Amino acid sequence: MLVLGLDPGLALTGWALIEGGGGRVTLKGAGVWSTPAHLDQGRRLLALWDSFGELVATEPPQAVSLERLYFSRNVSTAMAVSQARGVLVCAAAKASIELHEYTPGEIKQAITGSGSAPKQQVAKLVRLLLGNAVPLGPDDVTDACAVGICHQHAAGLRRALAAGAGR
Amino acid sequence: MLVLGLDPGLALTGWALIEGGGGRVTLKGAGVWSTPAHLDQGRRLLALWDSFGELVATEPPQAVSLERLYFSRNVSTAMAVSQARGVLVCAAAKASIELHEYTPGEIKQAITGSGSAPKQQVAKLVRLLLGNAVPLGPDDVTDACAVGICHQHAAGLRRALAAGAGR
Repeated sequence: MLVLGLDPGLALTGWALIEGGGGRVTLKGAGVWSTPAHLDQGRRLLALWDSFGELVATEPPQAVSLERLYFSRNVSTAMAVSQARGVLVCAAAKASIELHEYTPGEIKQAITGSGSAPKQQVAKLVRLLLGNAVPLGPDDVTDACAVGICHQHAAGLRRALAAGAGR
Repeated sequence: MLVLGLDPGLALTGWALIEGGGGRVTLKGAGVWSTPAHLDQGRRLLALWDSFGELVATEPPQAVSLERLYFSRNVSTAMAVSQARGVLVCAAAKASIELHEYTPGEIKQAITGSGSAPKQQVAKLVRLLLGNAVPLGPDDVTDACAVGICHQHAAGLRRALAAGAGR
């Protein structure tokens, strides 16, 4: 199963395509979609919409995974991020790709075994799990990898439970 | 000039088509787009995207007008509204319709002459300006009318200033 992990933002959106199966995860591609600051917000959101559309047309994922809407102390940033997030959630629905959301705690738990692990430890384990294939760069890419891996783990667990219940 | 005023929300989005010219404004149509609560957020945002697309295909406005992103005390609501807002801003850019934003104070000022007018006074004057044509119902429709009228006033003022400067 191919999962697209996303870390939405208006200026930078991290994306990561995570392939999973047989208890292993591999990175099929990752990067950031950046939108030029000199464009108005409509054109920036449309650029994001188009970037998502191009990627899923080329490498169709079975699921999109992203962090649940969180309560941020910086309301202004949270609202700008939410606008970008809304565009991506809508684009996923338009492409008929199922969407899964996880809390920061669930993502940390899936990667490190602890829901309160520090950010650096999550990043380190993401690189270890993906065999150092994660491009060094903005946190957005690592965060997109982490939420993608989180869904692979959750989906694997659900399959195992379903298989157990079927016995 | 035909302006589409919008009051975005995930559950209810108010819309109003305001025709302007010769110092007068008239209502060409108004209503709410509601999205069923039993659908997931992706399908709800996609329903909003489609409703916008259908309206602007039938009655193409020259501009979309909406309230500037505001700082809300209820962060959770603000983020849900921002997701819906992002979808509408993106949809306007995709349809190549110019977007204008106004602060709550600017909207109140344009309708009542005072930037700190109470909500009820704004609603009363919106109905007066549009000849009681505004459907009675949710605030969302009245708010969409108000932001649409606000852009008509601002655009009229800009035209008058440009004409004055050209003399």
